[in-house]
Amino acid sequence: MAPYTVLVAVSLSRRLFRQSHFGHRHRRCLHSAVEYPLSHPIYTIWASNTSLGKTLVSAGLSMSFLSSSSAPFSKRRFVYLKPIQTGFPDDSDSSFVYRKFCQFYVSKSLPFSVFASNSVLKASMPAANEVLGNGLLAEGGEFGCGLKNLHWYEERKLQGSESNGVEQFPVSEAVCKTLYAWKEAVSPHLAAEREEAMISDSEVLDLLRRCLDNDTVGNSGSTEEVQVMSVIETAGGVASPGPSGSLQCDLYRPFRLPGILVGDGRLGGISGTISAYESLKLRGYDIAAVVFEDHGLMNEVPLLSYFRNRVPVLVLPSIPKDMSDDLISWFDKSQTVFTSLKEIMLSNFLERTERLHEMPQKSCDAFWWPFTQHKLVPEEKVTVIDSRCGENFSVLKSSDMISQQFDACASWWTQGPDANLQIELARDMGYTAARYGHVMFPENVYEPALKLAELLLEGVGKGWASRVYFSDNGSTAVEIALKMAFRKFLSDHEMLSDHLNSDGNGKCIDLKVLALRGSYHGDTLGAMEAQAPSSYTGFLQQPWYSGRGLFLDPPTVALYEGSWEVSLPQKMQSVISGHGSLSFSSRDEIFKKSRDASGLASLYTSSILQELELLSDCNALSHIGALIVEPVVQGAGGMQMIDPLYQRTLVTECKRRKIPVIFDEVFTGFWRLGRETAAEMLYCEPDIACFAKLMTGGIIPLAATLASEATFEAFTGDSKLKALLHGHSYSAHAMGCAAAVKSIQWFKDCNTNMNLIPESRLLQDLWEAELVARISFLPAVHRVVSLGTLCAIEIQAEGSDAGYASTYASSLLQTLRGDGIYMRPLGNVIYLMCGPCTSRDTCRRLLDKVYARIHEFGLQKENHAACAARVY
Amino acid sequence: MAPYTVLVAVSLSRRLFRQSHFGHRHRRCLHSAVEYPLSHPIYTIWASNTSLGKTLVSAGLSMSFLSSSSAPFSKRRFVYLKPIQTGFPDDSDSSFVYRKFCQFYVSKSLPFSVFASNSVLKASMPAANEVLGNGLLAEGGEFGCGLKNLHWYEERKLQGSESNGVEQFPVSEAVCKTLYAWKEAVSPHLAAEREEAMISDSEVLDLLRRCLDNDTVGNSGSTEEVQVMSVIETAGGVASPGPSGSLQCDLYRPFRLPGILVGDGRLGGISGTISAYESLKLRGYDIAAVVFEDHGLMNEVPLLSYFRNRVPVLVLPSIPKDMSDDLISWFDKSQTVFTSLKEIMLSNFLERTERLHEMPQKSCDAFWWPFTQHKLVPEEKVTVIDSRCGENFSVLKSSDMISQQFDACASWWTQGPDANLQIELARDMGYTAARYGHVMFPENVYEPALKLAELLLEGVGKGWASRVYFSDNGSTAVEIALKMAFRKFLSDHEMLSDHLNSDGNGKCIDLKVLALRGSYHGDTLGAMEAQAPSSYTGFLQQPWYSGRGLFLDPPTVALYEGSWEVSLPQKMQSVISGHGSLSFSSRDEIFKKSRDASGLASLYTSSILQELELLSDCNALSHIGALIVEPVVQGAGGMQMIDPLYQRTLVTECKRRKIPVIFDEVFTGFWRLGRETAAEMLYCEPDIACFAKLMTGGIIPLAATLASEATFEAFTGDSKLKALLHGHSYSAHAMGCAAAVKSIQWFKDCNTNMNLIPESRLLQDLWEAELVARISFLPAVHRVVSLGTLCAIEIQAEGSDAGYASTYASSLLQTLRGDGIYMRPLGNVIYLMCGPCTSRDTCRRLLDKVYARIHEFGLQKENHAACAARVY
Repeated sequence: MAPYTVLVAVSLSRRLFRQSHFGHRHRRCLHSAVEYPLSHPIYTIWASNTSLGKTLVSAGLSMSFLSSSSAPFSKRRFVYLKPIQTGFPDDSDSSFVYRKFCQFYVSKSLPFSVFASNSVLKASMPAANEVLGNGLLAEGGEFGCGLKNLHWYEERKLQGSESNGVEQFPVSEAVCKTLYAWKEAVSPHLAAEREEAMISDSEVLDLLRRCLDNDTVGNSGSTEEVQVMSVIETAGGVASPGPSGSLQCDLYRPFRLPGILVGDGRLGGISGTISAYESLKLRGYDIAAVVFEDHGLMNEVPLLSYFRNRVPVLVLPSIPKDMSDDLISWFDKSQTVFTSLKEIMLSNFLERTERLHEMPQKSCDAFWWPFTQHKLVPEEKVTVIDSRCGENFSVLKSSDMISQQFDACASWWTQGPDANLQIELARDMGYTAARYGHVMFPENVYEPALKLAELLLEGVGKGWASRVYFSDNGSTAVEIALKMAFRKFLSDHEMLSDHLNSDGNGKCIDLKVLALRGSYHGDTLGAMEAQAPSSYTGFLQQPWYSGRGLFLDPPTVALYEGSWEVSLPQKMQSVISGHGSLSFSSRDEIFKKSRDASGLASLYTSSILQELELLSDCNALSHIGALIVEPVVQGAGGMQMIDPLYQRTLVTECKRRKIPVIFDEVFTGFWRLGRETAAEMLYCEPDIACFAKLMTGGIIPLAATLASEATFEAFTGDSKLKALLHGHSYSAHAMGCAAAVKSIQWFKDCNTNMNLIPESRLLQDLWEAELVARISFLPAVHRVVSLGTLCAIEIQAEGSDAGYASTYASSLLQTLRGDGIYMRPLGNVIYLMCGPCTSRDTCRRLLDKVYARIHEFGLQKENHAACAARVY
Repeated sequence: MAPYTVLVAVSLSRRLFRQSHFGHRHRRCLHSAVEYPLSHPIYTIWASNTSLGKTLVSAGLSMSFLSSSSAPFSKRRFVYLKPIQTGFPDDSDSSFVYRKFCQFYVSKSLPFSVFASNSVLKASMPAANEVLGNGLLAEGGEFGCGLKNLHWYEERKLQGSESNGVEQFPVSEAVCKTLYAWKEAVSPHLAAEREEAMISDSEVLDLLRRCLDNDTVGNSGSTEEVQVMSVIETAGGVASPGPSGSLQCDLYRPFRLPGILVGDGRLGGISGTISAYESLKLRGYDIAAVVFEDHGLMNEVPLLSYFRNRVPVLVLPSIPKDMSDDLISWFDKSQTVFTSLKEIMLSNFLERTERLHEMPQKSCDAFWWPFTQHKLVPEEKVTVIDSRCGENFSVLKSSDMISQQFDACASWWTQGPDANLQIELARDMGYTAARYGHVMFPENVYEPALKLAELLLEGVGKGWASRVYFSDNGSTAVEIALKMAFRKFLSDHEMLSDHLNSDGNGKCIDLKVLALRGSYHGDTLGAMEAQAPSSYTGFLQQPWYSGRGLFLDPPTVALYEGSWEVSLPQKMQSVISGHGSLSFSSRDEIFKKSRDASGLASLYTSSILQELELLSDCNALSHIGALIVEPVVQGAGGMQMIDPLYQRTLVTECKRRKIPVIFDEVFTGFWRLGRETAAEMLYCEPDIACFAKLMTGGIIPLAATLASEATFEAFTGDSKLKALLHGHSYSAHAMGCAAAVKSIQWFKDCNTNMNLIPESRLLQDLWEAELVARISFLPAVHRVVSLGTLCAIEIQAEGSDAGYASTYASSLLQTLRGDGIYMRPLGNVIYLMCGPCTSRDTCRRLLDKVYARIHEFGLQKENHAACAARVY
């Protein structure tokens, strides 16, 4: 069975067929994810301008597809969809395709029968009235938004020449449909507005999805092989507005269907064709071929040169200008071109689906995934990601669908863009690559790097930072931060000259970092050394690791059964009495600066002092050269929220001792926790801070280490050798800087980020507090931490089911992927993570599903336990 | 003085003015760098299609600019340039602008006088014959390429209304020029071909540069302030081909002048305008405003929404369709729009130049450059990079020019793209950002990552590698390589179970790397530890560094006074006798595999064995866990070429001992040394290899660590804890992978890389051997290493003038920057580095200049020395 054939019912009831668009099987899918079948080719027909012949191409394809006689002979169905039609009913492209196909069929006396139909599903009132005025079939009432359920329908049975007058059941079908029609022959956004018949992008996509779905499968049990091809014809040029005002290339982007571009063969047409092609590429579309009408200018020559022959360019014969010409002889003459085009479309489709299917196996053979035990990832567990649109992946689902999944792990916590920002970033990336590529950084200046430095210093570094050091990722940003901190420490404590040997080495000084257990700062050796021993740092991973730190056990906070509570580490628990309550009435209480005066604050202080004294007692040459913390939430350590009071106390004590303070905001920075920096929540300022991940909106690697002027000054002097001799080739690369500039501005602008509470520098709560609380009450749930874009849920687990290597939650996550939510666990901790601009509606929908699935999961575990109890 | 005013001669001789285009002052500039003055605004007028009114906009701007009466009253010059005109002389846009301006002037009775002129510089024979046939002025003879020096010229003195009949010297000027004209009214590439009057892009740019230069400055000594504005009107749409077939948006890209886009107000015009805008952005252009003719469709509304109000959109009144209308009243009616447009152009220009001028100071305040002693970089030493085009930067020069410099340090050795590849990469970056943004890597697969893995394994990893581990830069790739190697070593030597403590730590094993002195592997701690102590690794830089290696002194090779010679390290020098010659007749001799049988080979073997024995004698728990080398050339260590025989011997000895071999090809990989990998030159294969820099063509950070299947297998098992737990958020990010896919294919394809010797997997010699040899004979030169894209020259220096911190060569490099060559030194080593596709012509020109400047530099140093000798 060729990949573009599907099984379909032989006995089609016209009536059923007509009604099935609104049949119950689709109702439940409303607002469901965008998806389409991979069982047969579906192409979008684009054009570089209006009136270039998109509809002629569609009609020509219908003829070529349905009249081809390739062996083995099989039934065929050609589906033509026109989602947006203006100028209706005078202009109706689906009617044109229907009529021309019928005319062509009759003129050719083809041997087999074809059933042809044309329908118009919804229309504005003025357009519907035109049709009703003509006394034609109409059904349904108001649909809302001024669009009427028109259900206009016409059909023809075309008898094959070999039927000898006996009625032969049609073996093939030509199905033409207009989805939405407006009366005025203007741009859809104008028509929709003027006729008070607006429609949202998601409704258009939803109806389109239902049509695509419907056209694939049959209506009854009896099945036979049918070859199907669908085309979706857009309106106007590639960037012409749709009814909502969204450009059509943006409107249809969630599907990202492959396309055919109808170009322009006239003078000036080379330019228009290339530009239209580039607009489509800038939205991530693939174009299988370009086709245009010949105007004698040989436009195909420069076009092929531009494409470096990688995109086929086809030239159609000149179209008769005589309006009375029925074009049938033109279609006849053009059949070789349409047949080539059809073949290209079919073979491109085959190539694409074959590639999609072979990708899991090929990836298992060639990749070495990070943090992955390959033995535990069989081919069938590999996710094929065809594209992303805003927060959603499009993935290959059950090998015959492309379906959306919400990227709920925010692709390792990097993601921020919604679909609009993604398209803006794409254009900026193209522009920046074209303008700069990458240029050398040291001693040079160029706009994206300078602009970003300015934004960082007036944003996340405001009030304390004066210098920006660029690198590539969180780990390198931390390595740089440590180098900065150590130098500053040595300089502040006048150890630079005293303790240096004559050869410039200071082996006798043993510098340590002060850090929290459970923290994670990256995987390069320097960053590893600043972490307490863990699965990530063992001898198995890097024999050179020794753990050069004083690692403290921090108190944590989380929501337990509806209540926010502090959990103290063991050492503190013994001395807890009299230090005040460990429960809070709300999450906000935890962050209050007034807690500085609490008993817990004194407990924290004394515990910290004790640890520091212990260290200096042990070894007089050991010094704490830096404090490094992830403010507020430790990410990789299991989404642990640290008591902010404890971190503030730690910072205060370090500042008192002139120990440079590093905030590792790689995970927490840029609104991840609901504020631009987590430092704001601690009410204190570091000497050095590291940013990466969300800084570029999550599109491209870039890191920045911000530093105070005092830190910078520890490196100035007369010799280059005193400078910080650390750098990466792509330091401050233009594309990363440009992406960061756009994203930082986007996230903090109320016009683009609807989640911002104006003038408060705060995101509104994205995870509904009441639902979060309910989740925390579920028996299967141990604790919940919801803050900003993060909602982390620790599943109740014990023994080997807990911890980093646990696969305890994997069945739960597998079910959620089926629901369209792509999550990754941290052992038995699962989490939802959205972008700073993700709508609360979306968050609500995600959380609802997660609630339901955890509930189910809990019941299953209980049943298991009960069964187990019965057996043993 | 406003930035867009310049000093210009009052007394203009028409004759001089007319001839100056070809006067001697320009001859010497032929083939010089693209540059243009920043003294006044120069804009390119683009259009989204033909016949949208570019010329009307140009004419309208001339009227608005020259008739404005802003105080203080000053002289003005409006320059209109039409580089490419077809349909000539029937169509002549410069003549139209000239005539309309004169008509408008006369109709308005303006108070001041204006001198207006129109000239046509060069024309095809058919076009020239048309003019000559009309008996008009013509000069000059054949110009070659079928283009004739036409020098057609017309002028008018327009007397101001306040002159009262007395001849008043014109205070302002309207200068209109057509640069190249063809007869047929078709696309320039067709006209040029059909009229046998081809012209190269560089000739067009050169004439344009000369016109821009000429229009800025006056012809005689007497000066007065003149406000100037220049516009360059393109032909057809933005992506219409120019005479050579290059798209115009590509043709004019080296200038990257700001632009005005004339859009389309018709039905379908929104799409065409947006697409044209995007094509311009995809080439790095800035567009100051969009302007179009009103067709009553309110196209400005969706356009402004698309632009998010960041690009002004102006609407011109509907243009009279009556061909007899002289348009003067339309121009009159449109003056408010043109005045707004002019104001936008002026203020954008001011903003741009102000920003360019403030950038050095701002960068000194906000940046913390890597490897830079800020105290040694005053504001005036900062280079402002406005853009890059292929191998060239466009930099701010002497504060009033934008001028090209060849990026001869290849921006820290990352660069590969020529101008064509850069534009292709820009489109790919836009596409990939739009299609994927970034998506999660582990357990997932997406096309760019898989395709890249396939290309790497069948390319640089062919024959030995089976796995690709992605990270962000060379340093992280090395950290990963070390982790891989150590695990493999422990596994191969069955040390995993034996030497592990119960807590999973194996403290008793001391693993070291075997490495070469002078090597450099990155700045994160793990990579640093694999390097011998140096300026980069001192206590000042990272107190945690200890140097966990056995570091060997390698023999080096270089060209000394025309002869390739091996320099042995001290330890070997004592035992040299009888080990054969150290000189080679050619560079190729050095790489011959047959040297394995030489006496030197035995010397190398015994020296290596001795070192290894020494280590194991010292400490039985010390093991060499990995060998790491930069094959063939050590980059940061001063461009030292290591004797390939020595490296091969080292690899052989390590393989014999099951010590995993790591090749750090971050610098040497992807044609840097003339082959896709430097490993090919050594005739041996590593177990692990690191790639970065040139892999993406130099556009974006990405690194790959390739590994053999045996290495991979040391990490497989039943537990996730046995997996390699190292990763970076943006592992295998789609944009990096897509850039690498395009670049790798581009560099190894004979159709795109003209330097490839077909079927030999070898670049032709880019640096002419004879000239390189001559350089090696210069007294100021100590040694030369030229290989692939690299030509390194060590300047003779002693004491503090030698070594990493030396600034000995800085005056030499400053002079070379003035020559348009941007170089950075490694202490007293300077180098030229081009891309794999850079033409030999370009290399020759660079090397010629370098030769001349080093020669001068040597003479100066000699003189200094002589003077010093006389004094003391």
